[in-house]
Amino acid sequence: MNVINLDYIASYPLLPAVQQAMIDAIKEDYVNPSSQHQLGDKAAEVLAGARDQVALLVNAPSAKEIVFNSGGTEAVNHAIKGVAFANAGTGKHIVTSNIEHNAVLRALRTLKMMDYTVTSVPVDGYGRVNPEDVARAIREDTMLVTIMHSNNEIGTIQPIEEIARITRERKVIFHCDAVDSVGVVPVDVQKLGVDLLSMAANQFYGPSGVGALYIRTGTRIWPLLDGGVQENNKRAGTENLIGIVGMGVAAEFARRDMDSRTAHAKKLKERLVKGLQERIEDIFLNGHPELALPNLVSVSIQYIEGEGIVLMLDEENIAVSTRSACAAGALQASHVLLSIGRDFADAQGTLVLTFGIFTTEADIDRFLEVLERVVATLRSMSPLYLKAKRAAA
Amino acid sequence: MNVINLDYIASYPLLPAVQQAMIDAIKEDYVNPSSQHQLGDKAAEVLAGARDQVALLVNAPSAKEIVFNSGGTEAVNHAIKGVAFANAGTGKHIVTSNIEHNAVLRALRTLKMMDYTVTSVPVDGYGRVNPEDVARAIREDTMLVTIMHSNNEIGTIQPIEEIARITRERKVIFHCDAVDSVGVVPVDVQKLGVDLLSMAANQFYGPSGVGALYIRTGTRIWPLLDGGVQENNKRAGTENLIGIVGMGVAAEFARRDMDSRTAHAKKLKERLVKGLQERIEDIFLNGHPELALPNLVSVSIQYIEGEGIVLMLDEENIAVSTRSACAAGALQASHVLLSIGRDFADAQGTLVLTFGIFTTEADIDRFLEVLERVVATLRSMSPLYLKAKRAAA
Repeated sequence: MNVINLDYIASYPLLPAVQQAMIDAIKEDYVNPSSQHQLGDKAAEVLAGARDQVALLVNAPSAKEIVFNSGGTEAVNHAIKGVAFANAGTGKHIVTSNIEHNAVLRALRTLKMMDYTVTSVPVDGYGRVNPEDVARAIREDTMLVTIMHSNNEIGTIQPIEEIARITRERKVIFHCDAVDSVGVVPVDVQKLGVDLLSMAANQFYGPSGVGALYIRTGTRIWPLLDGGVQENNKRAGTENLIGIVGMGVAAEFARRDMDSRTAHAKKLKERLVKGLQERIEDIFLNGHPELALPNLVSVSIQYIEGEGIVLMLDEENIAVSTRSACAAGALQASHVLLSIGRDFADAQGTLVLTFGIFTTEADIDRFLEVLERVVATLRSMSPLYLKAKRAAA
Repeated sequence: MNVINLDYIASYPLLPAVQQAMIDAIKEDYVNPSSQHQLGDKAAEVLAGARDQVALLVNAPSAKEIVFNSGGTEAVNHAIKGVAFANAGTGKHIVTSNIEHNAVLRALRTLKMMDYTVTSVPVDGYGRVNPEDVARAIREDTMLVTIMHSNNEIGTIQPIEEIARITRERKVIFHCDAVDSVGVVPVDVQKLGVDLLSMAANQFYGPSGVGALYIRTGTRIWPLLDGGVQENNKRAGTENLIGIVGMGVAAEFARRDMDSRTAHAKKLKERLVKGLQERIEDIFLNGHPELALPNLVSVSIQYIEGEGIVLMLDEENIAVSTRSACAAGALQASHVLLSIGRDFADAQGTLVLTFGIFTTEADIDRFLEVLERVVATLRSMSPLYLKAKRAAA
C-alpha cells in the first residue's frame, strides 16, 4: 500500500536512523537505569546521552531540566497540574488562550472541578494571542499562564517571548505547550524565557509515546507520577529507554537538519497553497500567512464536509485529516476554527494538511489533482453549494 | 560482558519474540491509531490485538477495561489519584498497607497534602495483611482500599480475594497493585474481585515504560492524563504502539508458559534457598515460605552491608540488588523489612534475588560460590561480626 501521507502531525514517520537506534536498543536489551550494578550503569549512560541530545535541541541550560515522560499529553498535564497543585497556596487562577490543545483544555477542566478558576484570552483572525490580553488577565491570585507555541490545527505561532516578559515581571509561572513546534521550528527555552515547555518525539520523526517536559531549575512543581526517584525526582516510573533512545536521535537530527527541512517544507507549502487557490474556488486558508509552521496548511472548503473529503481521498490512498487526531473521536466543530471566526459550516469543511521530509512535489501535485476531483463530486451533491451558486447567478 | 542477572525484578529481559514483534512494529512504522484514514485503521487494529492479549492474561471480562499507559507507576497513580479525585464527594479516606511500593506510598503522600487521610494496616512477620485489619480500618468516609498483590522486596502474596469480599460488602473501591505478579503468577481479576488492577510489561519479559490499568466497568475514576479521547476516554495521549505491541506478545507468552516458567523458577528457588542455608551462617530468609513469588528470594545477611555485597558481586559479573531499583537513589532502610520486624542493621544487609527463564542452575551455583567468598571477606572486616562471634564463643 503506497499511501501519500499528508497527516504528519498525527505522528511523524520515523527517521531511518531513529528506527535503527531503537532496533539496536531492543537487541541490546538494557536493564533498569536505576539498578545498582554495571548493567544499570550502562543503561544510565544511554539515558544520559539522550537527555543531552534533547537538552541541546531546546537549548536548556542544564540537561537536568529535561524530564522524560510518555509524550506531549503527559508533559502538558504534568506542567499544568503539577504547578497548580504545588502553588495552590499562592492562588488558584490560571490564564490560557481559546485555541489550546485538548490536553491543556481538559487538564484545566479537571482543575476547574477542583476549585481553580481559568481565564481564557481570545485570538485574532489569524489565531494570534495579544500579549496585552494576557497582561490584563493576570490577577493577584494567578500562578500559571499556559499558552501554546504553535497551533496544531492552523499552525499559527504565538508571541511567546513577549508573553514571557510579562509573566516574569508579574512573577507568574509560564508553561508553553510547544509539542507541535519542537523539532520543527527553532525553540530555545532561554530565548523564549519560559519556565516550562512541553514536547513530544513523534512531532519530529521520533516514536510515539515518548516526550519530555523542560522544567526551569527552581520552578515549583509537583510530580504527576509519584513513586521512585527517577528523572531527578520529578517523574517516577521505569523509563521507556527504547523510546527515549529514539527521541534522542530524532532530536539530534532535528537540530542538524532544521534549516534544510524548513526550506523543503516551505517550497511544498507554497506549491500546495498556490495549487489550492488556483484549482478550487470558495476556500479559506486558516492561520497566519507567515508566523506559522512551515509544514502545515489548513484549508476550509466551503459547502462540503471534511469527513467526506477524508473518506474519498482515503480511497485514492491519500491520508489527510480534518483536525487533530486526538480529537478524532469527538464529533464537535473545532474550537480553534470557531475562535478565529470561522462559522460552524466552514469549520466542518476544513482539512489540516501536514507534510515533511518524505513528501515530494509529486505527492502535492497528485493530492491537488485528486482533491479537485473530490471537491467537484461532493459539491455536485451539496444542496448548500447549489443554492449558493444559484443565489450568485 | 557475560553477566549473571539475578535482578530480574528491576526489569525482566525481553523475550526474543517480544524483541522481534517490536522490531517489526518499528519497521512497519504505524501511524496514530486515532487517525481517520486507512493507515490509522491498521494501527488501531494492532492496538486492539494487543489489548485482547492483555485482557486474556488477567481474564478481564472485556478488553475495554484494559487501559494502556506508561507502566506500573502510572497505573498506580492513575488508580489511586483518579479514584480519590472522582470520589472526593463520598469521602476522603483511603486504606492501604505498610509494605506498599513507593508509587503507592508517594501517591498517597501527595493526596495527604490535599486533605485526604490514610490508614495503613500492619503486616505479620511474613509480610501478610490480615483482612480483618482492613475491615476494621474502613470508615464511613473510606472510598478506596489499595493493597498490593505481591511484594517486590520479599515476594509475599496477599489475601486479595478475602479483602475484595470485604470491600464489595462495604461498597469501597479496591485497587490492587499487581505489578510484580501479573505474568508471573496467575492473576484473574474476576476471581480476585478487584475493581482496579495495575500491571507493567517489564515484569513479564515485555518492554519497560509500558503498562496497563484494569478498570472494572462502572468504576468512578478520573483520567490522570487529560486530553484526547484515546483509551476509551480514560487515558489521553498518542499510544506507545511499539511498546504496546511488545506488551501484547509478552502477555500471550506469559499466559501460555506460566506453568513451565513457574516449575523452572521453583526448582531454582529451592536450590538457591538450600545453598544459602548450607553455605552461609547467620542469615534470615524474608517473606512467606509458600504464599510468595516463585522467582524471588530475599535474604538478610547479618553483620554486613548489602551495598558492599552488591559491589563485590558486580566485580564478579553478578547483578543483584539490595532492594527495589526504584528506591535505589533513596538511602533509607527498607520500610518493607522494618515492617516485618527486621531491625535496621539486618535490613541494610539484605539482598533481593530475582530470576527467571534465562537463569540456569549453573548461574545459581556460581552465585552461591561467589557469595560465600564475598560474605566471608566482608565479615572478616566487620567489627559487628567479630564482636558477635567473640560474645558467642
